[in-house]
Amino acid sequence: MIRLTAGELAAKLGLNCCGPSERVVCGAAALVDAASEQLSFVGSAKYFDAGRASKAGTVVVPPGYEPAEGQAVIESPQPRAHFAVALGILYPQAAPAAGIHPAAFVDPTAVVDCTAEIGPGVRIGPDSRIGARTRILHGASIGAEVVVGADGCIHPLAVIHDRVSIGARCVLHSGCVIGADGFGFEFSGGRFQKVPQVGTVEIGDDVEIGANSCVDRAALGVTVIGTGTKLDNMVHIAHNCRIGKHVVIAAQTGLAGGVTIGDYAVVGGQVGVGDKARIESRAVVGSGAGILTSKIVRAGEPVWGTPARPLRQHLAQLATLARLSKRKGGA
Amino acid sequence: MIRLTAGELAAKLGLNCCGPSERVVCGAAALVDAASEQLSFVGSAKYFDAGRASKAGTVVVPPGYEPAEGQAVIESPQPRAHFAVALGILYPQAAPAAGIHPAAFVDPTAVVDCTAEIGPGVRIGPDSRIGARTRILHGASIGAEVVVGADGCIHPLAVIHDRVSIGARCVLHSGCVIGADGFGFEFSGGRFQKVPQVGTVEIGDDVEIGANSCVDRAALGVTVIGTGTKLDNMVHIAHNCRIGKHVVIAAQTGLAGGVTIGDYAVVGGQVGVGDKARIESRAVVGSGAGILTSKIVRAGEPVWGTPARPLRQHLAQLATLARLSKRKGGA
Amino acid sequence: MIRLTAGELAAKLGLNCCGPSERVVCGAAALVDAASEQLSFVGSAKYFDAGRASKAGTVVVPPGYEPAEGQAVIESPQPRAHFAVALGILYPQAAPAAGIHPAAFVDPTAVVDCTAEIGPGVRIGPDSRIGARTRILHGASIGAEVVVGADGCIHPLAVIHDRVSIGARCVLHSGCVIGADGFGFEFSGGRFQKVPQVGTVEIGDDVEIGANSCVDRAALGVTVIGTGTKLDNMVHIAHNCRIGKHVVIAAQTGLAGGVTIGDYAVVGGQVGVGDKARIESRAVVGSGAGILTSKIVRAGEPVWGTPARPLRQHLAQLATLARLSKRKGGA
Repeated sequence: MIRLTAGELAAKLGLNCCGPSERVVCGAAALVDAASEQLSFVGSAKYFDAGRASKAGTVVVPPGYEPAEGQAVIESPQPRAHFAVALGILYPQAAPAAGIHPAAFVDPTAVVDCTAEIGPGVRIGPDSRIGARTRILHGASIGAEVVVGADGCIHPLAVIHDRVSIGARCVLHSGCVIGADGFGFEFSGGRFQKVPQVGTVEIGDDVEIGANSCVDRAALGVTVIGTGTKLDNMVHIAHNCRIGKHVVIAAQTGLAGGVTIGDYAVVGGQVGVGDKARIESRAVVGSGAGILTSKIVRAGEPVWGTPARPLRQHLAQLATLARLSKRKGGA
Repeated sequence: MIRLTAGELAAKLGLNCCGPSERVVCGAAALVDAASEQLSFVGSAKYFDAGRASKAGTVVVPPGYEPAEGQAVIESPQPRAHFAVALGILYPQAAPAAGIHPAAFVDPTAVVDCTAEIGPGVRIGPDSRIGARTRILHGASIGAEVVVGADGCIHPLAVIHDRVSIGARCVLHSGCVIGADGFGFEFSGGRFQKVPQVGTVEIGDDVEIGANSCVDRAALGVTVIGTGTKLDNMVHIAHNCRIGKHVVIAAQTGLAGGVTIGDYAVVGGQVGVGDKARIESRAVVGSGAGILTSKIVRAGEPVWGTPARPLRQHLAQLATLARLSKRKGGA
Repeated sequence: MIRLTAGELAAKLGLNCCGPSERVVCGAAALVDAASEQLSFVGSAKYFDAGRASKAGTVVVPPGYEPAEGQAVIESPQPRAHFAVALGILYPQAAPAAGIHPAAFVDPTAVVDCTAEIGPGVRIGPDSRIGARTRILHGASIGAEVVVGADGCIHPLAVIHDRVSIGARCVLHSGCVIGADGFGFEFSGGRFQKVPQVGTVEIGDDVEIGANSCVDRAALGVTVIGTGTKLDNMVHIAHNCRIGKHVVIAAQTGLAGGVTIGDYAVVGGQVGVGDKARIESRAVVGSGAGILTSKIVRAGEPVWGTPARPLRQHLAQLATLARLSKRKGGA
């Protein structure tokens, strides 16, 4: 954790500091929890009183905030965003400890940038390439012909299978599995015969994939996760899905095979999406929704429910059912 | 597996043995599967006939049970609970093999109790502390400044990230990930900027966390799992959740950020809970229910459905819909 | 990847090649993506035009297909199934690199067939047996008294706990956990006491288990996965479930304790099945369905919804609700 003054922090953020700019800032906390040497933030006018009641010595605030006695304030048109940047300053990421741990298993044909960090117990298969300053942490498993771009972090015990390609600045959390076989079988002769899954996975830049999430390799061709997309924990992406750029998918959502999602779509948690469905750019899918096979979800109104329908329609149906149930003597 | 007589077992349970107390007991099984040297149990009078038909040589029974010819019986007011205790006697847990495996990666600044077991391939980061008799098994990954209390078991390939604190007697199953980053981004400049997740996770005593479950670290502050709480497999606990004591959460349930759950609540499987919802102490949530953002679930009547509502109300609505559908010519 | 001619490939498939049988085949792709040296397939007459428009040099086709200029065709009554076989020829599985990696942790009492491959960082516990040509890849964790049959593949970082038995030709994907404790507690004295889970797991031949799936050991007795059954990613199988042969279960489905599923049943994704429910042989359960405790699902008509009911009945109810909602002024 870094120690600096409120004035120094404001300067790093490109903002002005008012009040006692010599206050020390060391760490951050929510308004209710913050101590005098901690930074906090006031998201909007709604929290002005909470800001003044807080013990935080330094607060990132929107215009119009009247500080408490002795508080240093850093004024910002976007306090949340600037607070997030401040967190990155106060709690800097560990720099990669460049080098290959003696107990890592790196194939001699793999090319590891000399600034990358390869932790103990890591395996890197033949012909794989690891970019500059990328950290591959304890026990992670990297197959053959894998590419991992620069400035990424592959957390402990994550798995990347053969021939998968990962862009720059990606974060793969522990236990995620990228490039396992898609779920493809042909029923023949009274049993399921495996259809070899010979495709791969391509992940863009700045992608983050949550703990224990799975992105399966394509049957043929490529499963794609676009640049800037963020997957939460335990998300399942089946073979041949194509997810656009800057998409957000919350935890425990599952996509069946061949689903496409356009740029900037937002998908809630525990959503299920059927084969070959298409979620268009900027569409919004509510948590727990179920989208049927081959269905198209358009931008404009969020969808919810199973089968997923426009939010107002779904709410109207819920209200109708509640009314009818009451009238007929239901509880 | 331990071999002893029915009389010896009863004595260890603090109960009386009637009938041939010299019968050998070696292992346990359900009534229908049990062999003559195995222990079984009769949960209630409903199973008296099954108990007499069983080949089990020794049976834990409630008062009033009439044994079969040659059966030894151990009478208990709580046969299930005493049977569970007997299982712990018959199948004792492996004692820790004290010491650090030569192929473990333990930072020199970590403090490992000399009675703890550290398996092969385990990593323990700087300044972490491992309590007495705790087992950290093959390949598990423990970060920096982690505390794990005494008498715990961290199963193979579980992950505990930096600064997480775990109480005494906790069991973390394989593949669970404690303290990965919460899912927090600010949309700014056409892309999602990561909000550094600088908080941590605190887990009380006697907590059990299922295989491949995830408990994310707080954005700021702490994600809390109270003493005695049990999480099943593939449960997702997002950043800043606060779960009370002696809570049970079944498999594949997911909690969004900032959810609070009171002591002794019971949450079924595949439940989804929205941001900042509150499940009060002793409340019961049925499997598959969906609890909306900021909703409060009170004790008293179980809730079910999406959006979750009191069980009777939900059942009445289901019945209404079935009735109307039939009348209007539906199937 | 293998290089051969269209004629040689047809011969290996036991089929005829028409047209320029000397065309080289090297890899495979979907019709729209295929290049001239790649194999593709036409599933049915619906795709005849796409087949002719494709750049694929060689195509597996049904009877009646009129090839494009210069295309080699391999005619089959089941083009999809033969294409799948061809994939296995073009992309042969890596042969096991027989032997135990020097950085594997194999107990001296374990018996590993000399043709098996044991990767770096793998642990194999006492008295376990690994069959011929089976690959246990990087970091996988095999407990004590485990049996893994011949010709299997245990992917990196999969976990098999003590006393689990796995048949021949099984594929366990990364991160799956077989034989963790079932979720069993007795509430007594104000807290949940663990009921020791002393049973085990038996998995038949030709089973495939997806990444990050969990199959818990039985409380008493055995959790069973029958021969030929395929589980997708993140499937949860609780203690004492008995799953028949040639069953398919899609991703993120969860089975509570003691569920039985008959042979050839098909269960969609994100299904929840309550304790002791029974899904009969050849029954079909739609994605997202919720099956209540002890419910029986029969073959014949698929079931859908929560609580699961016959598909037509569920659709009729959905239609009724939509109609009533519209009439009463809903959206």
